[in-house]
This record gives sequence, structure tokens and C-alpha cells, in this order.
Amino acid sequence: MDRTVSSDRLRERFDEFNEIGATDRGGVNRPSLSDANRRARDTLVEWFEAAGLAVTVDELGNIFGRRPGRNADLPPVLVGSHVDSQFNGGRYDGVIGVLGGLEIVETLNDAGIETERPIEVVAWSNEEGVRFQPDMLGSGAFAGKFDVEFAYDLTDKEGNRFGDELERIGYRGDAPCEPRDLHCYLELHVEQGPKLEAAGHSVGVVEGVYGFVWFDAAFEGAADHAGPTPMHQRHDALVATSDVVEAVRRIAGTGGEDLVGTVGSVDVSPNAINVIPERVDFTVDLRSYDDDVVDQAAEKVQREIAHAAGREGVDPECEEVMRIESQSFDDDLVETVADAADDLGAAYTRLVSGAGHDASYLNRVCPTAMVFVPSVDGVSHTEGEFTEWEDVVAGTNVLLHAVLAQASEAADVE
Amino acid sequence: MDRTVSSDRLRERFDEFNEIGATDRGGVNRPSLSDANRRARDTLVEWFEAAGLAVTVDELGNIFGRRPGRNADLPPVLVGSHVDSQFNGGRYDGVIGVLGGLEIVETLNDAGIETERPIEVVAWSNEEGVRFQPDMLGSGAFAGKFDVEFAYDLTDKEGNRFGDELERIGYRGDAPCEPRDLHCYLELHVEQGPKLEAAGHSVGVVEGVYGFVWFDAAFEGAADHAGPTPMHQRHDALVATSDVVEAVRRIAGTGGEDLVGTVGSVDVSPNAINVIPERVDFTVDLRSYDDDVVDQAAEKVQREIAHAAGREGVDPECEEVMRIESQSFDDDLVETVADAADDLGAAYTRLVSGAGHDASYLNRVCPTAMVFVPSVDGVSHTEGEFTEWEDVVAGTNVLLHAVLAQASEAADVE
Repeated sequence: MDRTVSSDRLRERFDEFNEIGATDRGGVNRPSLSDANRRARDTLVEWFEAAGLAVTVDELGNIFGRRPGRNADLPPVLVGSHVDSQFNGGRYDGVIGVLGGLEIVETLNDAGIETERPIEVVAWSNEEGVRFQPDMLGSGAFAGKFDVEFAYDLTDKEGNRFGDELERIGYRGDAPCEPRDLHCYLELHVEQGPKLEAAGHSVGVVEGVYGFVWFDAAFEGAADHAGPTPMHQRHDALVATSDVVEAVRRIAGTGGEDLVGTVGSVDVSPNAINVIPERVDFTVDLRSYDDDVVDQAAEKVQREIAHAAGREGVDPECEEVMRIESQSFDDDLVETVADAADDLGAAYTRLVSGAGHDASYLNRVCPTAMVFVPSVDGVSHTEGEFTEWEDVVAGTNVLLHAVLAQASEAADVE
Repeated sequence: MDRTVSSDRLRERFDEFNEIGATDRGGVNRPSLSDANRRARDTLVEWFEAAGLAVTVDELGNIFGRRPGRNADLPPVLVGSHVDSQFNGGRYDGVIGVLGGLEIVETLNDAGIETERPIEVVAWSNEEGVRFQPDMLGSGAFAGKFDVEFAYDLTDKEGNRFGDELERIGYRGDAPCEPRDLHCYLELHVEQGPKLEAAGHSVGVVEGVYGFVWFDAAFEGAADHAGPTPMHQRHDALVATSDVVEAVRRIAGTGGEDLVGTVGSVDVSPNAINVIPERVDFTVDLRSYDDDVVDQAAEKVQREIAHAAGREGVDPECEEVMRIESQSFDDDLVETVADAADDLGAAYTRLVSGAGHDASYLNRVCPTAMVFVPSVDGVSHTEGEFTEWEDVVAGTNVLLHAVLAQASEAADVE
């Protein structure tokens, strides 16, 4: 099949969509369940309905648009991603997966193609996790990882409940948020890393997702005056934290071929120029495609936290707040994506994703795979996030062909 | 002279005064020019006037209470400290120096003692510098270090001007804030360090104050996603900052006998668990009694900042925001304090102050010295700050005797 999506229509929608919550520096600010997120959802539902999709909103605000297949009894092919953003995040992250799914539907509509299976396009709630933690909440609940009441009771920094905010913006739907029978799930997303750009390829065939562990950690020392307190009598929570930052860097550099480690968040108290830091709260993020490597690194970091505390005479705290095993995507579906790229003559890189995605949870429900497109300079989660438009179109075409390959399958080959 | 102050009266006033802005954890929250600071000032003025002191408020809100001497033409003996606090600071810091000065006046009043010289008690504005920087602003302006308009234009984090806030609380006085003829300045203060407690002495005879330098520094790197960004492609502003925190610790440990170094404040952006830190703003505080040692340490730290930036591929910023030379107090006045302690049979330690004090600026105007009393566990600038009451009384008595020795001098021995 040589059919391709409409670059112009997709571009027009992409630009219009990203006027919602647009920032001065070229990004978007549409955190989960914000007013801007509501306007984005409203626009999406309007476009879904205009494309003839039957819209369903579930208890967690996940939005599904369904295009019928010849056989309504067959489990659908699901495509999608998310439309919530980081605080002052980028315009591509999540958006291209959802609008790309819609574009596929429009392309099929225009061509008058009926598929054997229904096709559904989904926008998952709260993927980013910047306002409500954990991230990937909507897809996680859908996959049975979180229950609905747990999600409703989550609060943001201002104390607003997820459930109340969902109600406020009008997206607390009636459909149950729970696993259901799906033929497969396909997600188009920006890579958020440098590999495709380095390879000079427009498309990435994603074979899986790194596992990761998150720690919330802290040191509690003593807040003495920075002048009269001799060096040998200090219990400086920031010095201990710096030891751990250095250790995480060293462990990540030597603990495994693909291991990455980051201290991303540090909060110092009292945080004054002339007071020895009494308490520092910080986070550790460790990832690898090899779960054993993550486990070994986690152990090393915990030991380093204990060592740093002992050296400095401060009290350590360390809590594992998230642990997700690495996900290997379905071999056959991965090959469907690779074949789609071959059909289109698109050179591609096979890779695994360092970032978590809704696809990580969907992989527990049904055969799952992803299509990546390059991130210029590997940059993501910032307003400077950028992907060449021809790459977005190439990725959407690969998605189209993969969806068609799955949705067109005759019912009797099941 | 065997006269001593009234422990009970001083204690009663100390407790009553510290009900103003009292915190649940036993400290006080009376930052400069806050409503609580106004109430503290109002109480002080009321008590000054009740003790017969003539109150003057200058352009910067410094409050002077004057007790006449036999000879009104002689420059006065000035005693005092400050009554603004850290955010959630301690009850002793500054307060004992001002209330101690008032107690001396009450003691002289009760005994019917007339001194040759006038005695003035002062409460300096904005010593702590937590709301408006720089600290020691009132005494610094009095000493000619800052001009009045500079002080008025300082703003707090909410953008409130110092001049407007001073007006708002009713303490923008008419008296010029400028150096004038003073016989000497004596300040009683808590040590804020561990030396007196370690020596088991109630009194410290302070021979001078450390010099110090403050840097505002920053690293600017790249905010990439913590998952897909390989370790070798990171420009992590927090890793560079941690290098500097470790370097400051090492330099302080080896750069001079009394050198201390602190990174007290760190602000990370975007400060998210799964984003590589793009920018970190941090501070460096270096102190020694030897200005050359401070200078050498400052140079080393600046080099380390450059090295860390080079290693991590981030852009460094470093600005010296404060540099105060060490102050050696007047030898004769220091001996007056030591003699007063001897007279009272109080064992004392001679030491220099690691913390800056209003006395540091007054030392530029007139002969200056200080009396320290111990800080339990060396703790200060926190709600847990504590000094044994008998030590406060001992220090106030030393102050009384030193003041009397200076104020009673016959005019013709000048």
C-alpha cells in the first residue's frame, strides 16, 4: 500500500492544537487537569467527533475515539499517547501520538477504507506526572496497576485532589477504567534522546522500555551558623547529598552498559547563604533495560547514602517510591512496525526507550509496540523540544501502515 | 565595684519580649521590618522611655536611647545589638545585647549612678539580612558603608522596598544615619559557635571578627530527560555544583587554620525527578580571621567553579556579592572587657568571632569590642538556639562593668 497521511492537515492541526497553553519561548504549558489541559481535551473531542469517532471518557479521564470495523466483535487496534504536558514543556511530546492517530483515521476516512477490526485513538490522562504523581497514571490504572480511588485521592502541591480536578474540568467519565480486550496498542512518540539523530534515521522501531527505580531520599544534619562553626564540628546535609550526586554519576558510568542515573531534584533547608544546610531532600532516578543492573545500582546508591551519612554525621532517609520493570514489546508487533518502515522505504534504528511511556503499561494488557521519531539535540521536557516535520510525517506513515497491517487482518486468521 | 544587674528583671523582659513573633518550636519569627519586628520595636521604645532614655530614630530605623552624662559634650558610650531575627530564628541572637544594654541603664538608675559620659543603647536595623540583603545594613549605613538611598531601594523577594516597609511600620526616622562622635561601642552577643561551651567559660572576650567573602554562583547546563540521555551526553548543572560543594569542603579543611567554607543555598531548575538539572544557583561563604587566607580560598573556589564547568560542559557564573575585611577590635577596649570579667571573677576565653556583627562596622567608627556568652551545642540561627540564663547574666554584668569603666572616665583624661 502506498497510501500516506496528509502532512498539511496534520501540520495545521498540530499548530492549532499547540496554540492552547502556548508559552512565549515556543513550548506549551498544559499540565494535567489544568484549564489549558481542558481546552486541549475539548479540542480533541471536537476533532474526534468531526472525524466520525465515537467518543468515550472513562473514570480517569482517558479519552477514547472509536472507528468501527467490519467486525464489531473483534478487539480493536488501539493507537494514541497523551496531551498533558510538562510545566513549560514541548509541543511534540505526546501530542504527535494522539494527533497522529487521528490523522490515520482521517486518512482512512478519505480513502474510504474499512478495516476488519475497529480502530481506537486514545489520549491517556496524566502521563507526565508533574502535577500529580505517579506519572502514566491513566494508562497505569487502565492496566490495573492503580485503582481509581487511589488516583482520585492524589493531590497536587496546592492540595487539589485529582478526582476533584477531573470533575472540575468535566472529564470524570462513566466508562470503567480497567483492562479490556485489545488486539494491540501502538504509540508514536518523540525519542527524547539522541540516538535517531545520531544515526540519521527518521524512524525508530522501539523494542522495549528501560526499567527504572525512583528514590525519595533525605539527609538531616544540623543548621549551624556558617561563620563560627568549625569544619570538624559540622553536620552538613548538602555535603552528604553532594557525595551521593557524585556517587550516582560514578555508578551510572560504570554499573552497566546502558545504565543511567540522575539526581534531578534537590531541596535545601533553610537554604540561606550563611547557614549550614540542615536538611536536604533529593531524588534518585536509575534506569537500564536490564532489571538486574537497575537493582545492583539501586543497592550501590543506597549503600552510598548510608556511607555519606556516616561520614558527615547526618541522618539518612531513603524510600523507593517507584519501581517499574523493563518492558520487552511483542516481537511480532515490533516486526509489524519494522515491516511498515520497510514498505515505506524508511531507514530505521532499532532501539529501546530510556523514558517511560503509556506503552509500558499497555504492554501488560496486549501486544504493544512503539514508533519513535528523532528529537533534535535529543532535547525533551523543555520548551526547546523540536522534531523535523518530515520526521513527524514519516513516523505517522509508519504508524498508519502498522495499524493497517493489524486492523485489516481477516477475522478468521485470529 | 560589686554592683550587678537584676537577673529577674532582665529575665522577665526577655520572656515578655520573646512572646512577640514566638514560634511553636520555641523560637521567634521577627524578620526585619515585619509586623512582628514593629511590635518588638514598639515594646523596646516603650521600655526605653520608661527607663528615662531619650529616644531617637534615624533614617534607617536604627533606634537610640540616650541616658545623659554629667558632661553632655562628651561623646557617648554606645551599647546594643539588634532585634530583628532570622526566619524562625532564636530568642537570644541580638536580643540579649539590646535588652542587656537597657538592663545596664536600669541598674544605674536604681543605684543613682551618674556617669561622666552619656550612655546610649542602640537597636540596629536589619542585622540578619534574611529579608533584605546585605545584612548589618543599619550599622553599615551608620558607619558610612552604605548610603541611605541604596538601603531604601533594596527589595525583598516579594518586591517590597526597604524604604517603603520602614515607612509602613513607622520607623523611618528623621535623624541622619551617619558616623558621629562616639567614645566606644560595646556589644553583648551569643557566640553562635562551640568554643565557650567547650572551654566551660561563661564569657568570651572578643578580639575581632573574621573577614568573609560571599559568592552568588550558578551553572547553566541542559535539561534533558533523565531516561534516554546517555551519561556521556549530559551537561548536568547539579553534578558541577556538587563538585564545588566538595571542593569548598576540601579547601576549607586545608586552606588555613581557621578557614571555614559553606555552600548554604542551592536552587535547582527545573528540579524534577526525571529531568537532568539545567540550572543551579548556589552560594559560597568563606571566612577567616586572616584576610589573605580568605582571598586565597576565594581564588581556589573560583578556579574549582571553572574546572567543574569545564568537566561537565556547563556555563559558569560567579559574582562576589560581599567582601568584608577582618576586624581587629581596639586593644584597650578589649582589655577593658577582660578587666571587667576579672573584676567579676568570671573565667573567660579570648576568641575571634566567625559571625559578622554590627560591631564589625562600628569598629570603623570608634573603638569597639564585644562580649560573648556561650551557645549550647554551638547552635544559632535556628529555633533551638539556647544559652544558659546564668551565662546571659554573667555576660550582662561584664558589659555593665566595661560600660562603667568607659563612661565614668573623667572628662579631663581624654
